[in-house]
Amino acid sequence: MPQIPSTTKGMQTRAHLLSSARAVFGRDGYVGTTMSGVATEAGMSLGGLYRYFADKEDLFAALVADTHDELFRASGTTAHRLEEDPYQALLDANTGYLTHYYDNRDIMRTLVEAASVEARFRDIWWQMRSRHVTRFATVLKMKFGMDEVDGLPVTRVAEAVACMVEQSAYVWYAQDSLQEDPIPVDQAAQVVTRVWHASFFGADRGSSV
Amino acid sequence: MPQIPSTTKGMQTRAHLLSSARAVFGRDGYVGTTMSGVATEAGMSLGGLYRYFADKEDLFAALVADTHDELFRASGTTAHRLEEDPYQALLDANTGYLTHYYDNRDIMRTLVEAASVEARFRDIWWQMRSRHVTRFATVLKMKFGMDEVDGLPVTRVAEAVACMVEQSAYVWYAQDSLQEDPIPVDQAAQVVTRVWHASFFGADRGSSV
Repeated sequence: MPQIPSTTKGMQTRAHLLSSARAVFGRDGYVGTTMSGVATEAGMSLGGLYRYFADKEDLFAALVADTHDELFRASGTTAHRLEEDPYQALLDANTGYLTHYYDNRDIMRTLVEAASVEARFRDIWWQMRSRHVTRFATVLKMKFGMDEVDGLPVTRVAEAVACMVEQSAYVWYAQDSLQEDPIPVDQAAQVVTRVWHASFFGADRGSSV
Repeated sequence: MPQIPSTTKGMQTRAHLLSSARAVFGRDGYVGTTMSGVATEAGMSLGGLYRYFADKEDLFAALVADTHDELFRASGTTAHRLEEDPYQALLDANTGYLTHYYDNRDIMRTLVEAASVEARFRDIWWQMRSRHVTRFATVLKMKFGMDEVDGLPVTRVAEAVACMVEQSAYVWYAQDSLQEDPIPVDQAAQVVTRVWHASFFGADRGSSV
């Protein structure tokens, strides 16, 4: 099993391989990518690549690991507090998520593909979305005492709203080659925040709800 | 290029092959399915299968074609009129969609996978979702004179809400093996309708909005 290198040169080579891998996965997709394609892109021998990564799965898992944590952080750091100004706090969170998603749309598109063919990536995808749902449902319970929305379990409504943000990001950015009319990230954030806010806090988005 | 058979026996064989193909695609996924796997499942020779379908793509396209139209019809037939009782009309539409999605969750899961590896199925998936968005945005413009929602283009909000229903159905039903606590279709329809209704018509879901 390859180890993460400890020398500066080793770390530089690993970073170069990851950046080459990102270009190949983004161009050829998960199923279409081969280890030899990545070695060629990196200008390195196949044996050299295998010294750093055990196989294609290992290589893609390394690419996804950082994105996963960064997306979660990007959507959790808000300038406003949810209990004081829910609309602005949600807009901050969604802007953070969508900006980061946009920057990593090649990896996110490949992750959806990988998740549909490999159980390991399906589990990563599932864990990614479950963290978001649980965090939001917990905040609604703790800060607003919200267990239900109109008689429906708050966790289910949070799941549906998380699906809305996840799939909108996928459609608008991961599949951006299909868009006739691209939507800027700031407008996308307003659209998903409008739906999100109306679902939990009603149509009035003033700062005193 | 294989033709659709005209004899009763030929049509029966074709239907038997499609039902075998459905079982294999549902079990092995799009990438994992092979023509010989389908022939074995059907108890038929590989040559026999190729007389009916040109290749795996052709076989899966035949499976998807019906589902596509039925989903669109199932979510368009409503007992209530949107302009008289938006909540109930949306609930009818979502119940129709989710019921049909649930019955075809194996095909829908395989379609998401196929769409991520084959341009032909990506186009089918895109067309499926675009029809839903266009239909809903057109109704909002025609029946409610709604061009904007809170200053945002109605088509963008309709896209986000369509993403919510599509991905919730995928998470809850196409990936039902991951659910610890399955959600019944009638509750799922209430959840997505709540989000949908609040986004366009506000939180009050009485029949006179």
